[in-house]
Formats: sequence, structure tokens, C-alpha cells
Amino acid sequence: MSGSTFGTIFKITTWGESHGAGVGVIIDGCPAGLPLTEEDIQTWLDRRKPGQSRFSTPRKEDDLVAVQSGIFEGRTTGTPISLIVYNKNQRSADYSEIASYYRPGHADYTFDQKYGFRDYRGGGRSSARETIGRVAAGAVAAKLLGLLGVRFLTYVKSIGPVTIDPARFDASEICKNPLSMPDAQAAADAQDYLKTCMQSGNSSGGIVECIITGVPAGIGEPVFQKLDSELARAVFSIGAVKGFEIGDGFAAARATGLSNNDAFYYNEKGILCKKTNHAGGILGGISDGSDIIFRAAFKPTPSISAQQDTVTKDGENRSVCVKGRHDPVIVPRAVVVVEAMGALTLADLMLENMAARIDTVLSFYQNR
Amino acid sequence: MSGSTFGTIFKITTWGESHGAGVGVIIDGCPAGLPLTEEDIQTWLDRRKPGQSRFSTPRKEDDLVAVQSGIFEGRTTGTPISLIVYNKNQRSADYSEIASYYRPGHADYTFDQKYGFRDYRGGGRSSARETIGRVAAGAVAAKLLGLLGVRFLTYVKSIGPVTIDPARFDASEICKNPLSMPDAQAAADAQDYLKTCMQSGNSSGGIVECIITGVPAGIGEPVFQKLDSELARAVFSIGAVKGFEIGDGFAAARATGLSNNDAFYYNEKGILCKKTNHAGGILGGISDGSDIIFRAAFKPTPSISAQQDTVTKDGENRSVCVKGRHDPVIVPRAVVVVEAMGALTLADLMLENMAARIDTVLSFYQNR
Amino acid sequence: MSGSTFGTIFKITTWGESHGAGVGVIIDGCPAGLPLTEEDIQTWLDRRKPGQSRFSTPRKEDDLVAVQSGIFEGRTTGTPISLIVYNKNQRSADYSEIASYYRPGHADYTFDQKYGFRDYRGGGRSSARETIGRVAAGAVAAKLLGLLGVRFLTYVKSIGPVTIDPARFDASEICKNPLSMPDAQAAADAQDYLKTCMQSGNSSGGIVECIITGVPAGIGEPVFQKLDSELARAVFSIGAVKGFEIGDGFAAARATGLSNNDAFYYNEKGILCKKTNHAGGILGGISDGSDIIFRAAFKPTPSISAQQDTVTKDGENRSVCVKGRHDPVIVPRAVVVVEAMGALTLADLMLENMAARIDTVLSFYQNR
Amino acid sequence: MSGSTFGTIFKITTWGESHGAGVGVIIDGCPAGLPLTEEDIQTWLDRRKPGQSRFSTPRKEDDLVAVQSGIFEGRTTGTPISLIVYNKNQRSADYSEIASYYRPGHADYTFDQKYGFRDYRGGGRSSARETIGRVAAGAVAAKLLGLLGVRFLTYVKSIGPVTIDPARFDASEICKNPLSMPDAQAAADAQDYLKTCMQSGNSSGGIVECIITGVPAGIGEPVFQKLDSELARAVFSIGAVKGFEIGDGFAAARATGLSNNDAFYYNEKGILCKKTNHAGGILGGISDGSDIIFRAAFKPTPSISAQQDTVTKDGENRSVCVKGRHDPVIVPRAVVVVEAMGALTLADLMLENMAARIDTVLSFYQNR
Repeated sequence: MSGSTFGTIFKITTWGESHGAGVGVIIDGCPAGLPLTEEDIQTWLDRRKPGQSRFSTPRKEDDLVAVQSGIFEGRTTGTPISLIVYNKNQRSADYSEIASYYRPGHADYTFDQKYGFRDYRGGGRSSARETIGRVAAGAVAAKLLGLLGVRFLTYVKSIGPVTIDPARFDASEICKNPLSMPDAQAAADAQDYLKTCMQSGNSSGGIVECIITGVPAGIGEPVFQKLDSELARAVFSIGAVKGFEIGDGFAAARATGLSNNDAFYYNEKGILCKKTNHAGGILGGISDGSDIIFRAAFKPTPSISAQQDTVTKDGENRSVCVKGRHDPVIVPRAVVVVEAMGALTLADLMLENMAARIDTVLSFYQNR
Repeated sequence: MSGSTFGTIFKITTWGESHGAGVGVIIDGCPAGLPLTEEDIQTWLDRRKPGQSRFSTPRKEDDLVAVQSGIFEGRTTGTPISLIVYNKNQRSADYSEIASYYRPGHADYTFDQKYGFRDYRGGGRSSARETIGRVAAGAVAAKLLGLLGVRFLTYVKSIGPVTIDPARFDASEICKNPLSMPDAQAAADAQDYLKTCMQSGNSSGGIVECIITGVPAGIGEPVFQKLDSELARAVFSIGAVKGFEIGDGFAAARATGLSNNDAFYYNEKGILCKKTNHAGGILGGISDGSDIIFRAAFKPTPSISAQQDTVTKDGENRSVCVKGRHDPVIVPRAVVVVEAMGALTLADLMLENMAARIDTVLSFYQNR
Repeated sequence: MSGSTFGTIFKITTWGESHGAGVGVIIDGCPAGLPLTEEDIQTWLDRRKPGQSRFSTPRKEDDLVAVQSGIFEGRTTGTPISLIVYNKNQRSADYSEIASYYRPGHADYTFDQKYGFRDYRGGGRSSARETIGRVAAGAVAAKLLGLLGVRFLTYVKSIGPVTIDPARFDASEICKNPLSMPDAQAAADAQDYLKTCMQSGNSSGGIVECIITGVPAGIGEPVFQKLDSELARAVFSIGAVKGFEIGDGFAAARATGLSNNDAFYYNEKGILCKKTNHAGGILGGISDGSDIIFRAAFKPTPSISAQQDTVTKDGENRSVCVKGRHDPVIVPRAVVVVEAMGALTLADLMLENMAARIDTVLSFYQNR
Repeated sequence: MSGSTFGTIFKITTWGESHGAGVGVIIDGCPAGLPLTEEDIQTWLDRRKPGQSRFSTPRKEDDLVAVQSGIFEGRTTGTPISLIVYNKNQRSADYSEIASYYRPGHADYTFDQKYGFRDYRGGGRSSARETIGRVAAGAVAAKLLGLLGVRFLTYVKSIGPVTIDPARFDASEICKNPLSMPDAQAAADAQDYLKTCMQSGNSSGGIVECIITGVPAGIGEPVFQKLDSELARAVFSIGAVKGFEIGDGFAAARATGLSNNDAFYYNEKGILCKKTNHAGGILGGISDGSDIIFRAAFKPTPSISAQQDTVTKDGENRSVCVKGRHDPVIVPRAVVVVEAMGALTLADLMLENMAARIDTVLSFYQNR
């Protein structure tokens, strides 16, 4: 497995399993001189922490980050930043039974097929705890992007059949309800829906939406590192994601050119604008200066206590009720993971873009 | 721009613009000894050739491939395979006017913002002709995968509002209608719809679906080179793609764990199977041995002859009718491009997977 | 700084400074199923540990490795292996003075120029402690290579003007003297030489030689990942290396084709052999099955207590005597670092080589 | 073989064999807006062209470059630059015999071992013609570096036993003698030596030295992309290189810290300088602003007409006289190849360095 590294210039490598010593990440390529504290990172980790509502796993983890390297006197040094979160609340005993069978919807079978065996405790490397490294690194990327004027607004757009109503959209609601929805009514309806799911030992999927403002035009590298292509890859690398779209997404497939094209115009200040943003801020794989908008579809949590058919490793058909401490819906906790992957992608491409033009290269070296 | 390379082991690099000398691709990392002829590649290029129906651009290009290196006595040598298709039917005069303004829905503005200027002839590097290199390389990847038992079935699932009916699904229809739809009735309806679009100088989007059979379990590298993540990136790097989904995709977001989990069972021969395939053949980013199923949403062709509002480079608002030879729908010609990106992704990950286990590594070196 | 990752398939990323929390490495891409214990790694770290003789820094570090992930029930899982060595014997006070001036022969000035400031405690990232991550990862690579029949013999060939005499070469001597020389007489002479250096607050350079046996023919990827090119890069990435050669090296520049070419012949068992090995086991960047032989030249330790001229950051010329706990010669402790870099390079290229031929690819997938 | 790509930002991919259709290179990541003509590139190719003196192969090749993409109206567009040189003077018949045996000192045997067979015409991919792509790309890198004030002075330092005398060093001599030596007397002596070699069907090795001026301090990425490490890798990837050193190189191994450290001082203008340059311009893997100096040792041309012992593929010992058109010394023609690899390495690292500090990143995006 050589797939634990992401990025070209702003490059991260994550490690760690659910029930090992801990999980962590190395950030290599963060520019030197960025003010950075453990609190900057902890704030993000707290957003994904379990146990914050009845709709997430009761597993309690403080998930306190420790900075091991790369920061000196409050600023990044340009050298690798190593971040670790030690595991504290492992209950491996919960998982002893699942060593023998393959949980439906999980990676148990595929890991066994690839590697010959697996660390079956808590899903090993395919556990949701693997995202801690992404979130910690995403916090650093977002700190950098914040200085460049880039802002993220990420929230739950739908849970199961319950979708937010654009007419009721209120960003301040996102942090007020346990489902991170920007619509109080939808959040209430979704909670009712989730309670029903939980009563039958079932779970729900949902959709996360992310709006990024302040991205300058020109970000993204044709033809295989397009901004949308890299965002798709980044978000699709999160476990449980089954769909991704930019701007109008699948709806664009049903549209016509006349309705889908975004007309350009100069506003009264002479600034180039678009009358609409069906494109979601990306044309030809390069940002156009308007808001970047994308969505990710998450499948329902596969770990459910309802009875299911499956097989043992040893050739027998059986039925199981998956025990353990699981989330009835992963989507609200995935919000910060999606935002982290967006931030990592943008930070990398914005740094890479600095070498795109000879005039800026000359200016860089002549002004030293 | 440093984004023209795709893949880790089976690695391709494309080059070329619509109106330059030609377009091409280098394939580096194709195993030695693969039987390969120009015909193997030409067959694929012929599938994407324009001018084959009234629904694609009347621009005529033979698009004949020339193998420049990497093949000796009918077999690949293990060294880079260089493939070139020379441009023959350039009419740059058609594009002289568009140097001055930004076409809505195109990359004119974003290329100018990134690089300071652009090759405005025919879209330059963001032209659909850029896909020729991908298709030529995809043919080689598919030849390799064919020996390994991997097969592709790719077709148009919908055009604008017209979608195929699963009850009428007939794979043999795909090559019988100009829209590559596996449903004769849907193909007829879609043609009617397209004629209406064309009469008003308009265009349509659509959806391509791809089913890959014969992929062994175990392909994909957690956590940032998951098979689904790499497929998403690969397909989203095709111009005009706005959405991507695996298996049930966005529908999974509305499902429950109980309905979405695929139950495992051993069939009468003792082979592990799944009762359903909502996952689209991928669990935890690794293939599970069942069919890989994915879809890509394409936006409508942005080049339309209907009148649109836009701006000039020099600060003026104006309206335009984009001239030139354009496709009213790009989706049927995109089928082979989607298939090529799928083949390139799989070939790379199947080669990378060979080093996953110590027993196979030992076996490889001890049997020499 | 985005240069902390090495390798394509067997990929490592190191982190950590001399005086931060610790140093470590992530190994991503080690095949699953390799038996591995902390002792396997500790043995290698003990070989580079300081304070083992009067010729190395008296700084005492236990340098105990902790495995954080990637091993389950005594075997690698195929997931990232995170290894940490915590720093325990930091005396930052020793370094407070050097914040103000640039030590000759050190990276103080260049780090300041690149990043705008630096972590001046103990050399920060350019400290010799950075090599701990390489050595820990090298131990894992060597464990893998050992199963494949690859063996390393690495030693000090010369220190200052004292060079081993081939006529007295005795591999069993290497671990008997503190200078790791395979010649007892040369080791004694070199110790006398070093004592003289130390008396004048001076230091010495030297040469490390490495012989690798058991490498099968065919390893190395033309044209930019040749085995010799990758070894050169790997070894030259060790601080203080100023020269590298394969086989006859610089002596080959003075030779003729007739004297330098290694004649092939079949021995009595019909096995292809070479009468000589001027090439050092590599032809055209690919291993030829004979011993791989290379050498690295190390400059003298730049930290010396003798008085030297230098400058302060603030524009003044001054003279300094560098304090702190330093090695009068780094070469003996570099032996294991050179061996580690050799092992990492070979492990990566041997895994990459598995996909070189279609027959082995077919065999791999058909035998599953 | 997946090793045909070099570089991270300024990235090249070469292709082509000695006796195929041609050889070429794709440059991806060259900044947009660089003025560039075919003449800029042809000038470099003419420097490596064979047949210019009695000391190089009489094979006549015009080696005319054709630019296929990436340049519009005289400037680079930021998209891939594809450069091709078609082969015109192939005489495959010359090589029909060598299909059956392994030439000593060549890659015939190792290619067969790696790939199972080889393109035996003219050495296939291990032919010296492979360097055409490097030289063409190096010309583009050097054009870019020239605008940044970086200059190269590259020459032959020694041929066989004949070395230039520093006291007679005259850069203007380099282009006046067929051996590219900056010392007329040494060039005359070396020609005499080569004539003796040729009379006995023998060949000679030699050393190329390169001095790069104008490189700003701060270039190079610790710890695995150090400037010296990347130069070592780049130069060692040229066929026939057996040794590489920076600054004092192997001589530093015999030196002491006191003699080898370069003392810093501020000159009368307050500019930081070094009294000596034993380091060759690199400290801790990062340029220090003084001249970069390195040397490469080339082995003698392995193709010689004198009789040698070798083996056939089919198990027989035999003796051979290698026919064909070969250089008695490759070193003078290698000068431009070494310079090209130096330029490619520096261009890549200078672009990568732009993202090293937060202040320059902020300045870049705020000044847009």
C-alpha cells in the first residue's frame, strides 16, 4: 500500500489504525513562517470528535493533538510538521468476534483479499479514525488559505430523504443543531428521521455541501490536475463517499447549453463577473474567481445492529448483528473532513500555481 | 502547468493543442512483451472520431495514429511508447474572432487568468482533441487488461431528459445507433430531442455509464489511491464532466444501511458472492470482485450558435454567436474517453497491487 | 520544503529536528505479511547510536524506537508503519549562542536564506539526528531484502589519509574496532590520526564503501531511475556526502575500454559470469547479477572547537569556537546510514521491477 | 519501465530509441510567456551532434528539432512542449549480428534480463541518442535560467591520463578544440593520446566539470531533494557516468574540518561572501550563493573494435570485435548533456523554491 500520501507541494502522509497506538499525519511543504498553534489544529479536531450528540458513536475520545516537529517559536519552519493523536479509548474486545466474519458494507473482505489478512480491530486502517490525520492537516491548510482570503462554508445538505430548503438557508444555524444543517426545520425533521432509523437498528446516508469563497481565478493545472479533478479525488478518498459533483453536477446532464452557460459581464466597477454560477466556479479545470461549490454523497453507516446475512472467512453463511459503538449517521461528522480535503487540495494547487508564469518567476527572483 | 502526467506505474503524459502540429501521448511503464499493433490503437481512435453522424462536429479528421517508439517486432519493449496523431484539418481562421472575447462555458477566461495569454485557436489545450492522447493510451491499457480478463461495457445512459429504460437494455444496440445508447427507443427519442436543440442553436448534456467485469478483488491502494478515488479523479479530468458516482451514488445518500449494504453469501460452488451490488464493486476503496459500475455527468456543449451575453478582453460587454464546427452533444463521443480513463486507472492500480504482499514478492523472485 | 519523501513503491517520509519532541519516519508500501519486531529496528538504531567510543559525540541518547502503527500480531499489515524515537537528552542551552552567527560548513546560513529564519537548536532539520528515521526505515527494507537473499557489507574504507589495505581486508574486523574498518592495522593508524585531530580541536573526513550481494539481474528503471542514479541520489542526500562512485568510479575516467569492459563468460555450470567487475554490478543502469559496489566520500565534521572566522546575522565579522557535543569524525556512524539508504533504494526498485514484463503480470493474476 | 520522467514542477519525459522513428521529449511545467524558438533548442542539439571531429562517431545525423506543441506566437503557453528529432541515418544492418551476443560494457544483457528481450538495434533505449531529449529540454531550462541570471560553464577536465592545468585555464579555448578542453596544451596532448587508443581499436574515459554562476542562495529542498542529491541523480542518470562529486568531492574525505570549512565574511559592500569554496556552493543541500561546482567521471566507450571475450545468448563463449560507428571517447559530446541535466535540475528546484515562505506566497497572491 503506497497510497497514504496526498499532494505535490503541500504534501501530507497519514498513518495509524483505530486500535493501534494512535493516528497521525506528516505535513511536508507548508511554507515557513506561518503562525500556528496546537489550538488552531485542536479546534478542527473538536469538530469531528465523536460523542457530541445522540447521533454519533458514544465512543469517547479526547483526540488531543500533539505537535512533534516543524514549529519553532510559534511559526512553521518549512520542515515537516508531525501531528499525533494517541488512541485512548480502545476496547478491542468489542471486535474479537468480527475477526471471523466479513461485515457487509465494510472493507473486511477486500483488505483480506488484498493483503492476505487484516488488523480486524475497529476496521484497522479503514476506520473513521483514519480521518483524524486529514482533519489535523486540513486545519493547517485552512490557516494558510485564510491568510490568502479563502473561506469555507460546509454543511449537511440532506440526511436520508430530508433536504434543506434554500428559502430557509441560514448559515448561523449550522453550529446550532447536532446535524450541522443550515436550516432549523430540516434539522428537526432529520432528527426525527434518524430516531426512526435508530429504533430499528438502522442508519442513514446524506449529502455534504461545501462553498469556498475568495479563491482567485487561475487555480488548477490542466489536464490531469484540474481543480475539479483534484477535488473529486480528494473527497472521494473519504470512506463512504459514493458521489461527487461540482456546481450543477448531475443536473447539468439534463440541461442545455443555453441554460447552463454562465454569461460573463463587467459590473459597474469594471470587474468581470458571471450572471449565474452553474459551473460551480471552475471552467476548464481552472478556478474562475467565483464561488467553488461542490457536494459529496455519503452512503449510510454500514455498521448497524439490525440482523444481516453475511459469511465467515471459513466458508459458512451466517447472519450477524454488528456490535460496537457506531454512528447512526456519519454525515454530520464528515463535514469537517470534507472541508479538510477541500483545504488540502486548494493549498497544494495554490502553491503549485505560483510557478505558472515567467513574469511572476522573474519578479520573485529579482525582488529578493 | 505540470499536470499532464497520469499514473504511477503505468504512466501517461499527453501533449498537443487543437490547432498545433498534432496531439500525442507517451506511455511509460507498460510491461514488456505485450503484443501491440497500430490497429489496436486505431480502433479506439476511430470510436471517438468526429463527423460520423449529424450529431457530431462536421470537422473531418482521419486521426491516424503513428507509433514512434516502444514496439519492436510487434511487442512492447518496456520502454516509452510514443503515439502521435497529426492535425490535418485546422481552420484557424474560424477562431480569429474569438481571440478578442471570452466564450461562456469555455476555459478562455481562466487560461488567460492563469497564464497571462492563451492559444485561442480552437480552445488550445482545453480542446476536445486533447482526449486523443488519452484514448490512444487507453487502448494500450485495455489490451493489457484484456489479457487479464477485464472487460468494459460503456454507453450513454441519458441525453438531456431522455434516459434508457433498464427493461429495454440491449448491449448490442450500443453500436447500432449514433448515440451509443443500449436502448433503441431511448436512442430514437434522444435524436428527436437533439434535433430540437439544434434547431435553436442549442446543445445538450448527458450521462455516460461504465461497467467493468473481471476485476479481481484487492485492487486499489488505501487511503488516497482508493480505486473509486482514482476513478473519480481520472473521469473528472475529462473536460465537461460535472458529476461522478460509483454504484448507487447519490441515491445511496437517501438510503438506509439495511437497504444499501450488500449481503455476502457463498454460492453452491463455495464462491463468495454478493446478493446485490449497491456498492458498485468497491468496498473501502478496494475492488470486491463484483462488477465495477460508475457514471459521469457531462454538461451541455458550451459552444452554441444561439446568441449569448459575454465580454471582450478589453472591458466591453457584448453578445456573441459562437461559430465553428461543434458537436450539439459531446456525450456519445465521450464514451470511449470515459472507457479509456477507466482502463488507464485500472491498469496502473493492477500493476501497483503486485507488490502488496510479501508472499507474492518472494514467489516472484524465487521463481526467476 | 517538500523533499522529505523518498521512494515510489516502498516510500518513506521522515520528520523531526534535533531538539524537538523527537524524530520519526512513516514507511508506506511495505508488503503485508513481513515478520517484523521492534528489535529488528532497534538493532540498526544501536549501530548509529552516539557515545559508543571516544570518537563520537558524548551526547547520550538511548534512541529507543516505538512502533506506532502498521504491525499486527508480529507482521506488517500493508498499511503505513510509523516509527518514533523521542529526543531525551536535549540541551538547548548549548545552542543559544549560535542563533546569532553562521557556523562555517553548516547549513545555518542557507536555511536562513531559504526560509527567512531557522530552528537554530542543534542544527534543526540538518542535524545528524535526522538520519534516525532513515536508519529505522532502512532496517525494515533490509529485513525484506534479506528474505530475497540480498546482503550488505558496509564499512569505513578510509579516514583522512589512512586507507585500508586490500591485502589485509578482514570483514570480521569491522565490528571489532570503533572505526568500523575491515583492517585492524588501518583502524589503529586512523585512531592515532584522529587523536591528533582532536588535540587541535580539528576533525576528519573519510570514505564509506558498501558491497551488496545477491541482487538479481534486472533491477533499475531506465532512464531516470537507473539503479546507480537512484543510489547516487539516495547516498548524496545524507548530510556531509561530497562524492559518490560505482565500481571503479573516477578511476574509470583514466581507463581504456579494453581494460574497463568486464568480459562475460559461461562457467562450468553454464551460468553467465563476468571475469572482472569494474562496472560495480550495474550496466545501463540495471543490475547485472554481480556484486553492487559503491563508495561515498564524507567531508570532515564541520563542528570543530578550533577558532574559525565567520559572520553574525547582523552584519559583523567575528571569530568563533563551536561548542557543543560533536563527533571528531562522522564516518564510522555514517556506515549504517549509507547501508540504510542502499537498502531503501533497492527495496523500492525490486518492488517496482515486478511489473516489468507481461508474462510475470499474467502469472501473478492467473495464479490467484 | 516507469523511469522516463524527471522533475517535479519543471518535468520532462523522454522517449525514443536509436533506430526507431525518432527520439523526443515532453516538457511539462515550463512557465508561460518564455520567449522560445526552435533555434534556441537547435543550438544545443548542434553541440552534441556526432560527426564533428575525428574523435566522434562518423554517423551523420542532422538532428533537426521540430516543436510540436506548447509555443504560440514565439512564447511558451504553459502547456506541454513536445520536441521531436526524427532518426534519419539508421543502418540497422550494422546491428544484426549483435542480436545474438552480449557486448561487454553494454546494457544488452541487463535489458534482456529485465524485459525478456530487447530492441538490439543500436542499443535501443540505452543508446547515446536517448540524450537528445535531455539536451533539447535542457536548452529550454537554460533559456529560463538565463533570464534569472544563471550561467553555465561546462568543459572536459580530463581525458584518460591527460588533465587540464589550472594555470593554463582559458574558457575561450573550450570551443576552439574538438575535445572541449579549456587548456590548449592539454587538448593537444589528449588528441595524441586518443590517436594511440584508436590505433589499437581502444577507447578512453574522462571527466566533465561544470561551474554554475548566479544561483541565488536558498535553492534545494531538504532532506531528500537536496540540490547536490538531485544533481547527483540527474548526472548519474547519463549512461557511462561512474562517479560524481561536488566541490572538493573525494578530496574532502582526506581533509580536516579546519581546512575544509569555508569561512564566511562580509566584504567592503557588506555582502556576505566565503573566503574559499570547498563546498562547491552547497551547504546542507541548499545553495549558498557562491558558484556551484561539480564533476562527473565517464567510463571509456564500451564499443571498441579490439577483440574481446563475451558470450552468446545461447550459451556459448566466443570473442567479438564490435562493429558499427562509435566514438573513441564520449566525453566531449557529453559536455552538453551534463550541462542539460544541471539546467533541468536547477530549473525545477528554483520553481519549487517559490513556495518556501509564507511572505512570498502572500505577496504573490496580494499583488495580483
